[in-house]
Amino acid sequence: MINTGFLHIIDILGTFSFAVSGAFFAMEKKLDPFGVIIISFATAIGGGTLRDVLIGNLPAGWLQNATAINTICIAAIGSMIFGSWLKKFNHTLFLFDALGLGLFTIVGIDIAIAQNFSIGVCIALGTITGSFGGVLRDVLLNQVPLVFRKEFYAMASVIGGLVYFLFDYIRVNDDLSKIICILLIFVTRLLSVKYKLGLPAFYTTQKTP
Amino acid sequence: MINTGFLHIIDILGTFSFAVSGAFFAMEKKLDPFGVIIISFATAIGGGTLRDVLIGNLPAGWLQNATAINTICIAAIGSMIFGSWLKKFNHTLFLFDALGLGLFTIVGIDIAIAQNFSIGVCIALGTITGSFGGVLRDVLLNQVPLVFRKEFYAMASVIGGLVYFLFDYIRVNDDLSKIICILLIFVTRLLSVKYKLGLPAFYTTQKTP
Amino acid sequence: MINTGFLHIIDILGTFSFAVSGAFFAMEKKLDPFGVIIISFATAIGGGTLRDVLIGNLPAGWLQNATAINTICIAAIGSMIFGSWLKKFNHTLFLFDALGLGLFTIVGIDIAIAQNFSIGVCIALGTITGSFGGVLRDVLLNQVPLVFRKEFYAMASVIGGLVYFLFDYIRVNDDLSKIICILLIFVTRLLSVKYKLGLPAFYTTQKTP
Repeated sequence: MINTGFLHIIDILGTFSFAVSGAFFAMEKKLDPFGVIIISFATAIGGGTLRDVLIGNLPAGWLQNATAINTICIAAIGSMIFGSWLKKFNHTLFLFDALGLGLFTIVGIDIAIAQNFSIGVCIALGTITGSFGGVLRDVLLNQVPLVFRKEFYAMASVIGGLVYFLFDYIRVNDDLSKIICILLIFVTRLLSVKYKLGLPAFYTTQKTP
Repeated sequence: MINTGFLHIIDILGTFSFAVSGAFFAMEKKLDPFGVIIISFATAIGGGTLRDVLIGNLPAGWLQNATAINTICIAAIGSMIFGSWLKKFNHTLFLFDALGLGLFTIVGIDIAIAQNFSIGVCIALGTITGSFGGVLRDVLLNQVPLVFRKEFYAMASVIGGLVYFLFDYIRVNDDLSKIICILLIFVTRLLSVKYKLGLPAFYTTQKTP
Repeated sequence: MINTGFLHIIDILGTFSFAVSGAFFAMEKKLDPFGVIIISFATAIGGGTLRDVLIGNLPAGWLQNATAINTICIAAIGSMIFGSWLKKFNHTLFLFDALGLGLFTIVGIDIAIAQNFSIGVCIALGTITGSFGGVLRDVLLNQVPLVFRKEFYAMASVIGGLVYFLFDYIRVNDDLSKIICILLIFVTRLLSVKYKLGLPAFYTTQKTP
């Protein structure tokens, strides 16, 4: 069965990693330290917050989650102080980020299931939980959200979510199903980056010369 | 009296048309198919969602509206597959979009009236319902919202809303009033595009050379 | 003790000033009058609205605050009509804006305290109340939010909030504490602009050539 201590650790690592990713983007845009902290927060809590707002699960979860807040502050301040040092761990951070995507997606889906939404909406809310932090980060930094352009990011969430419901349908043990789907999202994300897998973009308009 | 079947059809056509409009904008920006679907959703449900969030009408309506979700998915996927073919119907789509603007505005106002907001706030919420989807689409695609620059778009909603309250004041039959105001917004929008009617922009700053 | 009439006047002046600031930014971007009004609203009510949404205090406050709505409309329309004349009062407006920042921050903190959030969250919600209107204005106008780049803006809120809780801890009279903290934010903001005080930006990435 699933170890909640294990889940809790991944949750913190995921939050940490999303916060670090936000901080690095903000530093690249040369924001001041306060801006870095804000973008860090937005990246780490954006997805869960939008989910909470859409389903009316208010106050938003992070407002009452001191662990998350402390983790984000430490991640953001640490990124500024140890920026060049942390870059050596880029690979490790990327693993955390991918694990976080998996966990946040499944957490989001479970919260949606508890409120009896349809399967499609549950998967959408899981995907929002996993991906919207990055969208918010990009909107605040004034760039077209990466998630719309890059490798299978949100799509990994969707695949994991579909399998999660499939497993429920064929009565796989719930905890086992959670672990497998988190890992599936994780691995899908990793492979998509390794093989630069992306959805092809559609072009319907004449290219501007 | 108003035929709810008729209203329902316009609602679906409006949702469809907003979703198609979002998909086309996203394809012009060369997003991948997943991004196209997201932008499609954001355009079609953005206005109603912001209204629902502001008035605390949560969970947001679309989460429990399978028809809307299916319509948007069909519209987005169809736009990608039949992109060049659909372009021939640009005029028809524009009509749907204008009808959708009218319908969404009046739907938004009615929901606001039911919660006893002031007239100004009701019209604002109607306008938000009709227009914010396009604003969200533009923010996500990283451009200044068209609605702030272009022909009478939101203004058509405001005019329709004012007349709606005027009709209420002079005791016009409610269903008749709905139809007329939806048509008024529709026609105002059409004429504004036909005659390139826009509000003049104000310039208070020296022009940058 | 604090005079609520005095608070009310600052509240209106703060709202007015935020609305004027939004209108001027929008006119610089050459939006049409309708766009100017929208940006004016977004700037003036954005912070309080995000706070209300996050804590589930819905419908958002401004929907039921006719004074705020009228103030914003007058400010936006007035800015368009008397734009060049109002520019002479740029200094006065800046003072209102800084006062508004102070007041909105303390108002936001008080609302958060009433809901028993932790100190850090209360200060964050106060800062959001004071600053997010400007962030929303910048996102809608498609630029990186000024607050992330410029002088101590949000930081003034944070400092004022910290002192507010310090005063509570050492049992300073509540009304006195409010006045001092509003003035502290006001003065911090003024001095930071006068001496071009900003947080240093961190650079971790190689400069793009």
